[in-house]
Amino acid sequence: MNLLLLDEGDFIDHQRARVTDSRRLQHLLKVQRVKVGDSLKAGRLGALMGQAKVLSLSKQQAELQLTLDQPPPPKLPLTLVLALPRPQMLHRLFQVIAAMGVPRLILLGSARVEKSFWQSRRLASDATRHELLLGLEQARDTVPPQIQIERQFKPFVEDRLPAIAGDSLGLLCHPGDYPPCPRSVSGAVTLAIGPEGGWLPYEVELLEKAGLQTVQLGARILRVETAVTALLGRLF
Amino acid sequence: MNLLLLDEGDFIDHQRARVTDSRRLQHLLKVQRVKVGDSLKAGRLGALMGQAKVLSLSKQQAELQLTLDQPPPPKLPLTLVLALPRPQMLHRLFQVIAAMGVPRLILLGSARVEKSFWQSRRLASDATRHELLLGLEQARDTVPPQIQIERQFKPFVEDRLPAIAGDSLGLLCHPGDYPPCPRSVSGAVTLAIGPEGGWLPYEVELLEKAGLQTVQLGARILRVETAVTALLGRLF
Repeated sequence: MNLLLLDEGDFIDHQRARVTDSRRLQHLLKVQRVKVGDSLKAGRLGALMGQAKVLSLSKQQAELQLTLDQPPPPKLPLTLVLALPRPQMLHRLFQVIAAMGVPRLILLGSARVEKSFWQSRRLASDATRHELLLGLEQARDTVPPQIQIERQFKPFVEDRLPAIAGDSLGLLCHPGDYPPCPRSVSGAVTLAIGPEGGWLPYEVELLEKAGLQTVQLGARILRVETAVTALLGRLF
Repeated sequence: MNLLLLDEGDFIDHQRARVTDSRRLQHLLKVQRVKVGDSLKAGRLGALMGQAKVLSLSKQQAELQLTLDQPPPPKLPLTLVLALPRPQMLHRLFQVIAAMGVPRLILLGSARVEKSFWQSRRLASDATRHELLLGLEQARDTVPPQIQIERQFKPFVEDRLPAIAGDSLGLLCHPGDYPPCPRSVSGAVTLAIGPEGGWLPYEVELLEKAGLQTVQLGARILRVETAVTALLGRLF
């Protein structure tokens, strides 16, 4: 937790907040070991960040005086389209995209996405939100990525993806004899990454029709959050 | 497990192997659901990879006919020097560096590395080896990275690092007003990444004397395995 992230409910007035939940309070007391009078980095969810001075502190609550005057760091110019990964990958993925500054993630159905994945409790909005906040706290950002669920591949890719990809550089990662993913691009990118085992040929065809060009990532098969992180390091 | 990785002890002769441990056997039976006659990708630890054909299969063992004739994927031209991260980061880090193709990791002491971190059971050679093998199985590689422990900062950086860095591009990641990390380099790199909270000024000075140039990574604070992955994506 490199940033104390404050939600509407924490605010007493626009310059004071009170933290009462055990997770953040324990972190302040046991990891950061703050004392009354200390200052720490804090931010308002979806808004500015800056300093919080500890006014009072107990095992039940911390009261803070806030000076929030700095914008959060810029986001990447990216729309990330991922075939829904298996549930046990989701919590790390959400943390990573929030930490890296991905503004928008679209989780997409695909023939190789198992139906049961959509029932995961990790897709519930409170679970998603929790992981995104952990990523923001890690990276010092206040603005959570938007998560969009598109369970049906064809209507999304045919009807909505062309407008989303728009004038951006549209890239589709797929193993095979394709050009390598470009490096250090300027401007917006729409990046689509397939499921374990890859997109079907029919899916590649529809994604290409929607304006994406197919690129490959080398011989190594990476976990989804590792592949995403390496690609963002390469692209931006 | 995208590659069945076979150790010396698994081999019956140079073209046949037997898998009896529960982890790999369960994966073959329950995740990959292989049957007698199926072929799957396999490799010999530290050596060639190729195909394994299932000769027999039971709850106790799988017997395999091997055709190992392909080299593992090339490693990155990199020596990675990391201030020892806190223990709960190590298992992910080891998996990631093995999957990404890092050939050599040096875990270094630093003033901000807590002494207790060195006692972690995750640094024990069997624990390290387990995580490295998981990373190799994920990425389809057979050659584990070398892990070197250097608990004393000063003698390592003064006496041994200059020869390790040699003619490579030496980079030292540190937050502050430094040039951004270069992109898409050709040739070998020695990359040093500091502990949570960063290197001390004295440590930066010694690392620079050893031939590394200081670069920064932007405003976001990333977990060590995320920072490493993004940097490797950017550099190679």
